[in-house]
Amino acid sequence: MALTPKRATESATEMVQMVLPNDANPLGFVLGGTVMHLIDIAGAIACHRHTRTLLVTAAVDDLQFLHSIKVGDLIILQSRVTCVFTTSLEVQVDVFSEETLTGTRRMTSTAFLTFVAIDKDGAKIPVAPLLVETEEERRVCDEAHRRREERLQRRDMAKAEG
Amino acid sequence: MALTPKRATESATEMVQMVLPNDANPLGFVLGGTVMHLIDIAGAIACHRHTRTLLVTAAVDDLQFLHSIKVGDLIILQSRVTCVFTTSLEVQVDVFSEETLTGTRRMTSTAFLTFVAIDKDGAKIPVAPLLVETEEERRVCDEAHRRREERLQRRDMAKAEG
Amino acid sequence: MALTPKRATESATEMVQMVLPNDANPLGFVLGGTVMHLIDIAGAIACHRHTRTLLVTAAVDDLQFLHSIKVGDLIILQSRVTCVFTTSLEVQVDVFSEETLTGTRRMTSTAFLTFVAIDKDGAKIPVAPLLVETEEERRVCDEAHRRREERLQRRDMAKAEG
Amino acid sequence: MALTPKRATESATEMVQMVLPNDANPLGFVLGGTVMHLIDIAGAIACHRHTRTLLVTAAVDDLQFLHSIKVGDLIILQSRVTCVFTTSLEVQVDVFSEETLTGTRRMTSTAFLTFVAIDKDGAKIPVAPLLVETEEERRVCDEAHRRREERLQRRDMAKAEG
Amino acid sequence: MALTPKRATESATEMVQMVLPNDANPLGFVLGGTVMHLIDIAGAIACHRHTRTLLVTAAVDDLQFLHSIKVGDLIILQSRVTCVFTTSLEVQVDVFSEETLTGTRRMTSTAFLTFVAIDKDGAKIPVAPLLVETEEERRVCDEAHRRREERLQRRDMAKAEG
Amino acid sequence: MALTPKRATESATEMVQMVLPNDANPLGFVLGGTVMHLIDIAGAIACHRHTRTLLVTAAVDDLQFLHSIKVGDLIILQSRVTCVFTTSLEVQVDVFSEETLTGTRRMTSTAFLTFVAIDKDGAKIPVAPLLVETEEERRVCDEAHRRREERLQRRDMAKAEG
Repeated sequence: MALTPKRATESATEMVQMVLPNDANPLGFVLGGTVMHLIDIAGAIACHRHTRTLLVTAAVDDLQFLHSIKVGDLIILQSRVTCVFTTSLEVQVDVFSEETLTGTRRMTSTAFLTFVAIDKDGAKIPVAPLLVETEEERRVCDEAHRRREERLQRRDMAKAEG
Repeated sequence: MALTPKRATESATEMVQMVLPNDANPLGFVLGGTVMHLIDIAGAIACHRHTRTLLVTAAVDDLQFLHSIKVGDLIILQSRVTCVFTTSLEVQVDVFSEETLTGTRRMTSTAFLTFVAIDKDGAKIPVAPLLVETEEERRVCDEAHRRREERLQRRDMAKAEG
Repeated sequence: MALTPKRATESATEMVQMVLPNDANPLGFVLGGTVMHLIDIAGAIACHRHTRTLLVTAAVDDLQFLHSIKVGDLIILQSRVTCVFTTSLEVQVDVFSEETLTGTRRMTSTAFLTFVAIDKDGAKIPVAPLLVETEEERRVCDEAHRRREERLQRRDMAKAEG
Repeated sequence: MALTPKRATESATEMVQMVLPNDANPLGFVLGGTVMHLIDIAGAIACHRHTRTLLVTAAVDDLQFLHSIKVGDLIILQSRVTCVFTTSLEVQVDVFSEETLTGTRRMTSTAFLTFVAIDKDGAKIPVAPLLVETEEERRVCDEAHRRREERLQRRDMAKAEG
Repeated sequence: MALTPKRATESATEMVQMVLPNDANPLGFVLGGTVMHLIDIAGAIACHRHTRTLLVTAAVDDLQFLHSIKVGDLIILQSRVTCVFTTSLEVQVDVFSEETLTGTRRMTSTAFLTFVAIDKDGAKIPVAPLLVETEEERRVCDEAHRRREERLQRRDMAKAEG
Repeated sequence: MALTPKRATESATEMVQMVLPNDANPLGFVLGGTVMHLIDIAGAIACHRHTRTLLVTAAVDDLQFLHSIKVGDLIILQSRVTCVFTTSLEVQVDVFSEETLTGTRRMTSTAFLTFVAIDKDGAKIPVAPLLVETEEERRVCDEAHRRREERLQRRDMAKAEG
């Protein structure tokens, strides 16, 4: 049965979180690991909304933390599927901080994650195609293909070494 | 006052964790975000042991999840400083799973993280040099420098776009 | 200094969460208390975005759980300021579940919460007015005033008894 | 088989909790959501002790926070079944704060919650009757019936709108 | 200023908790460490109610787990001050499980903990005397003195070795 | 089938943790209960590595907290099997604090825990023998046997009383 193609806008997701004390170091700055955890969840939700399957995280491309986020501030995560491969898909997650008392919003990170669709026995299953309609969407998907090739090369190297 | 150089072995760290139910998805596989959170902490501990300062996470290079880890299994994280820059340093974190009932151990991920040393007002401060003595250590540090240059390029691009 | 009035759309918030095992009872249904906790946070975020002050929760109007939510499903919370009083404001939070594997979305709860704006010594401070422009917005605000009067009566009774 | 009636005193429960840093906002005041979560658990325990069945939360009547509670203080929750309907029951939960260093105790909230008894397939099942013996118990149960009627009306309205 | 003596009944505490999935191992049995954590809190609350000071845990006497506790069951902890020394006091914590669906209650552990009273600079401060009035209370306090002597001996040995 | 004997060094484990705000009291000192929780996990990991079976905690011998540990510091736990009985085994856990900013390391506790090996129906199963080769290992195992006898006596007393 052919899987119905979907647009990226149908699965795009925005998450908001308030930073609680346990998410932060003794100076009150949110831990990098807390942000990574949220990036994984935000990416997973958009991918679930595209695939409507179980998923496992396969890879996270390099991510940088341009600004720090303080306890009591908001973290906003926007995730959007960039490209579908056969049994996996890539999602972009943009992270912003919003100061609760001023509203100042700053981009703090951008990440690309890859998820693999699996059934309940853990076997890989096909993912519905992504409708790529605009020039911009095509460019984003082309870059996703390039990132995927680099990832597969690094993976082969890691397996060869490991 | 000159900071005393240290060897990577002086700060190398091994962390072990048991995967609890809340760290996993409904299939019982540990979430990618949980592993990322632990990678950040394992990297931070080795860097703290090198710098003996406060730290913030600045970047995480691409990481892949080669195998999944189940509830009840162990996660082992080994972290080791690879290179010191001026006010920042890079650390390598290798992640292994160990099946509790069989002892089977598999490498699941390798990550490179960069941390910035800060004082309690958040200002960047110098990091003690790393004693690089063997041929292998020199190679690792050279690669760290190369990764750093790529990171700075991507950062400039992200800031230009953001 | 007069506070600048704001529209409800400027502070309206949507939160998404994935239900994790610890949020649920042994049957895998999310605990009422977990949903209430999220309702409080979603309401607080919209109110913070309106007031840009510190806040404390003053009251939660009756809420019902029309459907149960399972581990692995999504909880979506939409919050929107309904009315501003002098130093407090009311927010409506609508809760939906979304089945991860089918996309079926159902409204599970609606709640009205009141937050009080405070400064960092805990003293009550004025809240920026709400721009009420449409017929519907006016109706919502009128009902909020009615709910507030009932709340104050119950509060006086509770204090008299307590 | 007829279910054995029980007195409210047989299932009445007192819970005590120490407020930890993660339960509070940056000012150190406990979050409304944390208190709501505890109210749900305290209510559920008394109802479990009455029904000895699985339960789901069906409704929470309006609740107010008369005083704030600080990190390090104690929260005391007293729950007591007020009335049994056919497959559901109502419980009253009174919340008090106790300052650790002075012993000062203040009532902060009173809530009424309704739980539905279910079997392990999620089907509603009958609840053992409540022995109502004193004048006061009868008054409490009458009010519970009145609250229930109002709840059902609101529920019908919510379903009609939703 | 002389501290007012108190009875053990004035500070005796009962805590109830529902076991959540994250408190348990993959078989659904609560972790020993979870129970120990609750024992520490239950003991601390009774001691806080006696001393009305800040406290740190100094020692836990041997404790055994006679029965295991399952997810969804209740843990009941009863704590009672047994004896006051100069700047410290001993508390007994009895732990019971209660099966939610049957009401079956079993004692699972008994523990003796010692807490030290401190001011906010961390200096030890005197504890209010304990009113010991019955024969049984005197016996309990005598045994506490004996346990304390054994503890101090072990502590000296540990410090000598450490 | 005879179980293959193992050396203590084959299962010895070192865990490192960073103390987060929620692990501590309002003064920033780690809770005794948090340390106990970690001791249980560190002991369980070494025992799992020896037995490769499921385990439940049966007993914790007296433990003392010689020094307090602050938020932001490291907790290091070293666990090592001391002796194997028939279906249970004893493990020693040494706890150290390490100040993040100075590296100062202090022993804070030593504990002896007993775990029972079980199959997935909860029935006790035999544990692989421990290879005891040095004089020191023999002394440690003899003391473990002595502690076990004392434990069994106390257990019989507790069961007789309970």
